[in-house]
Amino acid sequence: MKILKIGGSILTDKKNESLANAARHSEIRRVAEEIAARPEELVLVHGAGSFGHVPAKKYGLPDNFSAEGLRVTHNSVVRLNDLVVDALSEAGLSPLPVHPLSCVLLKDGRIESFAKEPIEEMVKDGLLPVLHGDVAMDVTRRAGIVSGDQLVPYLAEALHAKIAAVGSNVDGVLVDGKPMAKITRKDLPSIETYLGGSAGVDVTGGMKGKLLEMLDLADAGIDSVIFNASKKGNIARALSGETVGTTVTRSN
Amino acid sequence: MKILKIGGSILTDKKNESLANAARHSEIRRVAEEIAARPEELVLVHGAGSFGHVPAKKYGLPDNFSAEGLRVTHNSVVRLNDLVVDALSEAGLSPLPVHPLSCVLLKDGRIESFAKEPIEEMVKDGLLPVLHGDVAMDVTRRAGIVSGDQLVPYLAEALHAKIAAVGSNVDGVLVDGKPMAKITRKDLPSIETYLGGSAGVDVTGGMKGKLLEMLDLADAGIDSVIFNASKKGNIARALSGETVGTTVTRSN
Repeated sequence: MKILKIGGSILTDKKNESLANAARHSEIRRVAEEIAARPEELVLVHGAGSFGHVPAKKYGLPDNFSAEGLRVTHNSVVRLNDLVVDALSEAGLSPLPVHPLSCVLLKDGRIESFAKEPIEEMVKDGLLPVLHGDVAMDVTRRAGIVSGDQLVPYLAEALHAKIAAVGSNVDGVLVDGKPMAKITRKDLPSIETYLGGSAGVDVTGGMKGKLLEMLDLADAGIDSVIFNASKKGNIARALSGETVGTTVTRSN
Repeated sequence: MKILKIGGSILTDKKNESLANAARHSEIRRVAEEIAARPEELVLVHGAGSFGHVPAKKYGLPDNFSAEGLRVTHNSVVRLNDLVVDALSEAGLSPLPVHPLSCVLLKDGRIESFAKEPIEEMVKDGLLPVLHGDVAMDVTRRAGIVSGDQLVPYLAEALHAKIAAVGSNVDGVLVDGKPMAKITRKDLPSIETYLGGSAGVDVTGGMKGKLLEMLDLADAGIDSVIFNASKKGNIARALSGETVGTTVTRSN
């Protein structure tokens, strides 16, 4: 069983504040068709993209607790999830939506409990569970945000995945514009010196967070690959285990 | 904390096979306003009504396993849930949807596991979780249906509810057209003799299933009331503990 993450930046135009126009329908369709081309036991997690960021920013989530903010933001990311599930279905797959708000509890922003049983059963029955970045309840902060990047390593470990493939819109962990073929935790200090610098290392913000999550997963014995899902064919390559992007693995 | 069930027969026209017209919008609004009139710690469960029965029948659920049937039926009941959540929000409450497909696992048609933690946290934070009859994965039958009537006693016990109020469109457990004030397990044999008979006892089908679930709950020490939620004012009465309909309680 494999975990595939598709970043919100692939599926939505993050620069478009108007959610009516923010969905990239042709990209959603392409992603669905690439996944359908390589049928296997899979759990799909997609980012919320602008469907999450725009309402979350409007309501000041996760710092400000607001019932309306939670409901509106959840409804918005579910709309994107509907588009993805519909596209996967049209591509011939058997997707079912799984909403983290219904099954995840956070503690101080980290996943504290997760109902993995329905997801396991879906995969066993030949179905494709489709999760997404979402709002979620939090025992210490009342509510928070659970990102796709946090869901992926959690699920990979809980479900004993063979690999986690994390698709964003960059070619991997870049050094001087080129993706590193492999990265282990012991490479981290040398890369961190570039952070905020100008040496062409793209390990800031989203990518740094992604990398740290994947290094934790590698410590647990599960390799992952960070790749560019906006380039046609890369999703199939990543799922088949071909070299694409940066492999995150255990120090050795 | 209390559990309130509103039957699908209140919220939808079960005789209307066209789902575009099956929602009873004015009843959904009335129910929402009655709940808003008595704010308390509450979990709401609503039936799927024709939004569940029509697609389930079309795809032969739960006997025939079909990925499309699961997806279409789930989408349909979620549409009804959206209407209920929207109405509750407009009535001034703070609802959040919780979908059983994401958090319930069945075994041979009965709830085997359930992620209650997010629901507990919602109630603690002043939010109103809104669940519904749904399709769900099943470890022995691949997939099945989890009815609102099954969710109510499970949640009542798991969340240590003070009472479970089960609203349908009849006045309770009827004998000669009148609701019994109280029923215990030891009353069951005398009532069962009327089953299928013509003595005016309405304990068939839906009502019998409801009653058996509630007797199990009474055995666990939690009383429930089966009442007519289609009569204005009854929801508030049931939530406040006033006598309305039939109280199901432990034998004594």
